[in-house]
Amino acid sequence: MKGTLAMHPHNREVRLRTRPTGIPQAEHFEIVQAPTPKPDEGQIVVRNLFLSVEPAMRGWVSSVGNYSEPVPIGGVMRSFAVGRVVESRSPDFVIGDVVTGMFGWQDYAVVEGAKVQRKVDEVDLPISTALGVLGLNGLTAYFALLELGQPRAGETVLVSTAAGAVGSCVGQIAKIKGCRTVGIAGGPDKVELCRTEFGYDVAIDYRAQALDAALKVACPDGVNVYFDNTSGVISDAVLKHLAVGARVIICGTASIASWDPPPMGPRVERHLLVKRARMQGFLIFDYTQRYPEGLQSLTKWVKAGLIRYREDILDGLELAPDSIAGLYRGENLGKRIIRIVPNAA
Amino acid sequence: MKGTLAMHPHNREVRLRTRPTGIPQAEHFEIVQAPTPKPDEGQIVVRNLFLSVEPAMRGWVSSVGNYSEPVPIGGVMRSFAVGRVVESRSPDFVIGDVVTGMFGWQDYAVVEGAKVQRKVDEVDLPISTALGVLGLNGLTAYFALLELGQPRAGETVLVSTAAGAVGSCVGQIAKIKGCRTVGIAGGPDKVELCRTEFGYDVAIDYRAQALDAALKVACPDGVNVYFDNTSGVISDAVLKHLAVGARVIICGTASIASWDPPPMGPRVERHLLVKRARMQGFLIFDYTQRYPEGLQSLTKWVKAGLIRYREDILDGLELAPDSIAGLYRGENLGKRIIRIVPNAA
Repeated sequence: MKGTLAMHPHNREVRLRTRPTGIPQAEHFEIVQAPTPKPDEGQIVVRNLFLSVEPAMRGWVSSVGNYSEPVPIGGVMRSFAVGRVVESRSPDFVIGDVVTGMFGWQDYAVVEGAKVQRKVDEVDLPISTALGVLGLNGLTAYFALLELGQPRAGETVLVSTAAGAVGSCVGQIAKIKGCRTVGIAGGPDKVELCRTEFGYDVAIDYRAQALDAALKVACPDGVNVYFDNTSGVISDAVLKHLAVGARVIICGTASIASWDPPPMGPRVERHLLVKRARMQGFLIFDYTQRYPEGLQSLTKWVKAGLIRYREDILDGLELAPDSIAGLYRGENLGKRIIRIVPNAA
Repeated sequence: MKGTLAMHPHNREVRLRTRPTGIPQAEHFEIVQAPTPKPDEGQIVVRNLFLSVEPAMRGWVSSVGNYSEPVPIGGVMRSFAVGRVVESRSPDFVIGDVVTGMFGWQDYAVVEGAKVQRKVDEVDLPISTALGVLGLNGLTAYFALLELGQPRAGETVLVSTAAGAVGSCVGQIAKIKGCRTVGIAGGPDKVELCRTEFGYDVAIDYRAQALDAALKVACPDGVNVYFDNTSGVISDAVLKHLAVGARVIICGTASIASWDPPPMGPRVERHLLVKRARMQGFLIFDYTQRYPEGLQSLTKWVKAGLIRYREDILDGLELAPDSIAGLYRGENLGKRIIRIVPNAA
C-alpha cells in the first residue's frame, strides 16, 4: 500500500441527494466536503482505500420495503470499504491495521470498534479482495450455493450473471464440489471469461443465443441448481428446464429495473409443483456468525488457484455516483471497486 | 357395507373422450359398457364402492408436462377408489378384503396385488375415509405441512382453500402442532365451517372481504407458513404478508383455469429475497414409503376428534363426468366422493 495516509482536514462524502425509484443514477448523488470526523472513546478512524460497488445498493437506497433501513436523503452512501486505521480509541485496533466493514462512500469513517467486520490479514493477497472474492461476494457465493443449493457431485449448476463477482465464484465453487457448470452471461467478452477463466463447462450468451434452445442443449438432464442473480426473462427460460427436485437460489434481480410496482411475469407455481422444486431467497447478513468458516475455505481456494477472480477498478471517488448505474449497464468485467487513494494495492 | 356385490357381466367405465385444455368438463368424458375384466395370476378383481374426485385430476388429463403420463384418450379415467375384493388370484388378498388404490372410475378393476395401495382395516371408521382424511388428502396435508412447512408452535399458518379436503386437514394439524391458524375460503358456508368445524383462529371470505386489509389484521406478525392450494390473486395478496423466513408450500393451483400458456402475475423474487422465504412444490407420491407413518398419526387424531372431516358424496357413477368441473365451481363442502354401490358405507 503506497498511497499517502496523512489525515486531511476535509472528508469527501458521496451523499444521497434524491431518492431513485429504479436504478440509482449519477444525478441521485452529490460529493460534498465535510470536516474530517473525530473519534469518541471506543471508536476508530479508518482511511478508506477501496470502496465497494454492488447491485444490492439499489435496494439500500430504495424506499420500498427492504431488509434494512433505506439510506437517508443527505446521508453518506452506505457501502463496504477496506481501509487503514489512522486513529484509534479502541483497545482492539492499532494505527496501521487494515480493516473492512460498512464504512460508506467517503475518505474517512469513524467507526465503533465492534462494527468492524474484520481485520484483513491475508498478507499475500491484494487487500481489495476483501471487498470481492474474500468479502461479501465470495461469502454470498459460498453460503448461498452450499446452504440453499446443496449441490451434489455430478449435478448441473446453472448460474446467471455467470461472469460477475458473485456468479464467477459460484461457478468455481460448484466445480470444486464436482458439479457440471453452465453459465449465462451477456456479450462475447463475459462469455469468453466464463469459459477460459472461470472454468464453466458451457457458457451461454443470452444476447446472442436463443436461450431456450441453448439451455436444452446445455442441460439435457435438466438444471439441478439454478443460482439466480437476474430474474426476468432469463429466469422464465431457465424454470422450464428444472430437473425434479431442483433448488433455485434467489440472490439478486439484476434484470428488473424497478420493483415498484412489481413487474409481471409467467407464474411459477406449476414449475415448482411438477418438479417438486424449491425457490429460496438469500441474504448474506443472516450468515455473519459463519463468515470465518467461509473465509477460511475461500482463502484456501484462491491461494490454490481453484478460484480466480477479476476486479474492475475505477480510479477516483468522483466516479462513484455513476458506478451503480454502470453495473446495471453491464459495463464491468469482474468485481467493481473504487480506489480512492492513488496506487493503493 | 350393505350394497350387493354380485359380479355383473358388464363393467361401466368412465372414459376420457377428448382432451381438455383447461378444467375437464362433463363433455370430455363418456360412460361405456365393457365386459367385466378377468384376472391373471397375481391379480385381483376389485368391486369399487367409492371413487375419488380431486383437483389434481385436471393435471392427470392434461397433455402439458406433468409428473405422470396423461390419461390416454379412450382410457378409463385415472382415480383413487376404495372397494372390495370379489375375486383373487393373489396370495396376499382374499375375497372380502377392503382395498384402496388407483382403480379408476369404473365398477370393476383388475389390479396387480402389488399395485394395491393398502388394505383398509379401520373397522370403526367409514371406509370412504380411505379416499379423504385417511387417504391422499390427509396424507398430503400431513407430509406437505410437516415436511415442507416445518411449523413451530406459536407461528401463524395460513391455508388457502381452507375448508377443502386437504386444507381443512392442514389447519387442524397446524393446531395440533400449536400454531395460530388462518383460513381463506370462498363464501359464508365455507368460512363458517372453517370457524366452527375446523378450528381456525381466523377465517377470511376472499369473496366478501378485501384480502390485503383482512390479512393485515389476521396476521399482524406476518405469515410463517403459507399452504397454497390456489395460486393467482389470493397468493399475490398473501406473499406481501410473509414473515422473515416464511415457508410457502405449493400444493395446488385451483384458481388457475389453464397453464397453457402460463398466466401472468406479479414476479415473486423480491418477496422471497427480502423475506428470505422459500416456495416449494409438493407431490404426495414422493412419500409413498412413509404412508404408514402418516396414516397412523391421522387415524389417531381422527379417532380422538382432533381432526374432523366433511364428505360431499355424489350418488351414482353417472355423476362422475361433471364432478371435476363442479370442484372448480366450488360447489362441494368437503371431500368429493362418488358412491357407485347404493348404501355402501
